[in-house]
Amino acid sequence: MKKITHSHRPLILITNDDGVQAKGLQQVAEFLKPLGDIVVVAPDGPRSGQSSAITVTTPLRMKVLDEQEGFCLIRTNGTPVDCIKLSMNILFDRHPDLIVSGINHGSNSGVSVIYSGTMGAVFEGALLHIPSIGFSLCNHQPDADFNPCRDLVVDICRKALASTDWPQGIGLNVNIPKTPQLNGVKMCRAAQGYWTEEYDCRVDPHGREYYWLTGTFKNNEPDADDTDEYWLDRGYVTIVPCSTDCSAVNTLPRLSSILGL
Amino acid sequence: MKKITHSHRPLILITNDDGVQAKGLQQVAEFLKPLGDIVVVAPDGPRSGQSSAITVTTPLRMKVLDEQEGFCLIRTNGTPVDCIKLSMNILFDRHPDLIVSGINHGSNSGVSVIYSGTMGAVFEGALLHIPSIGFSLCNHQPDADFNPCRDLVVDICRKALASTDWPQGIGLNVNIPKTPQLNGVKMCRAAQGYWTEEYDCRVDPHGREYYWLTGTFKNNEPDADDTDEYWLDRGYVTIVPCSTDCSAVNTLPRLSSILGL
Repeated sequence: MKKITHSHRPLILITNDDGVQAKGLQQVAEFLKPLGDIVVVAPDGPRSGQSSAITVTTPLRMKVLDEQEGFCLIRTNGTPVDCIKLSMNILFDRHPDLIVSGINHGSNSGVSVIYSGTMGAVFEGALLHIPSIGFSLCNHQPDADFNPCRDLVVDICRKALASTDWPQGIGLNVNIPKTPQLNGVKMCRAAQGYWTEEYDCRVDPHGREYYWLTGTFKNNEPDADDTDEYWLDRGYVTIVPCSTDCSAVNTLPRLSSILGL
Repeated sequence: MKKITHSHRPLILITNDDGVQAKGLQQVAEFLKPLGDIVVVAPDGPRSGQSSAITVTTPLRMKVLDEQEGFCLIRTNGTPVDCIKLSMNILFDRHPDLIVSGINHGSNSGVSVIYSGTMGAVFEGALLHIPSIGFSLCNHQPDADFNPCRDLVVDICRKALASTDWPQGIGLNVNIPKTPQLNGVKMCRAAQGYWTEEYDCRVDPHGREYYWLTGTFKNNEPDADDTDEYWLDRGYVTIVPCSTDCSAVNTLPRLSSILGL
């Protein structure tokens, strides 16, 4: 595949985990066209819950679906992270100025960031020291209305593009509540908790059991007013900076003691 | 599927991302039998690079392959994280005392932790506040010799089982160098860097391009003597405590300034 030619304008790479046909992806590409050249590289179908998964056992393919001046749309058979890696290595001759993932149909707040394919792509960009932002609307509907997000998304992306001191290895997890009236924007940390999986156990026509993943998020700290869940519940947009470095150096003394090292 | 009955001994859940047939999985299960009741729940084939991916669009299945007193072996069609979730929700009536993932055939040091299915399972256990440890041998061979790892693995797991103050939300990433003589054990942080993907681009018999993921790890800090890559290169086992909470609260002031919030 030939390299993508781009202008002197900022180069913005967009992907998602809902797939190339998703409304949230198409909408954010439209929102951001005034800010720069747009290259969309997205999976050929849903990849929700794909986290930072990469495809190592099957080959990847890309297909150009649309190409105009300042806009290119490409489909892949990979994960969101594959989309970023393919773009960086096959399509571009320089780093993009901004990576955007989303707008996801559904929340990625709290510990969901661990499982999120949307945020997997953001971590991939952050590893390469590219300002990278995941946007999620807390609404799973395929026809969700993304228009209330427009000004916010454009504003955050414009400021990210203008920044000269974006922290290295950091991506943003932006969640937008499902509400007609946003009450404001809060920068915060992710609420800690876990999913209780109430698998839906069924029996197939041959008498064998199978299990569908469902679940409910249990917030360990519902009253903590520095967390995303707290403010989303109150109608605020939340922005959580997320690090690609999970090393917990503060626990080294205690664990050294436990392990006798 | 019926709940697993277990004795008064410690309950150890083992999974991996190389699949139920992998030698590293079978070996670690043997190593740990003296420490407690062993339940192995592992994918039906390789799931390398699956990170914390969960299966949401297809149903999951489990099949008991072996069941003896104090030992049970179960195959699933899911990811490593699915294996943990299924175990917690379908098989057990209490939390296991320890979760072990591996022994992986190949390194999970540096930033590889982000993509690692081995470590995905560890993060899942850590989210539930269960002591969780991933073991990786820096040797990709299917017939790698895991015997030099035995004493180390048993020692770490015994101490984890005995601990009463394991830090919440923390899993261990243990990497073992491919060397006949281990020089020691170091607790450290993950070396920061990135993978440069040199995709292997090929053309199929129909003239269409496809891409195989390959790559080389670029260490941004090769001289940092508090990192795993540094000590692995020198023949030491490395132990990195990893946090499930990626919120980078130290960057909130700078990002608030960038975003004008």
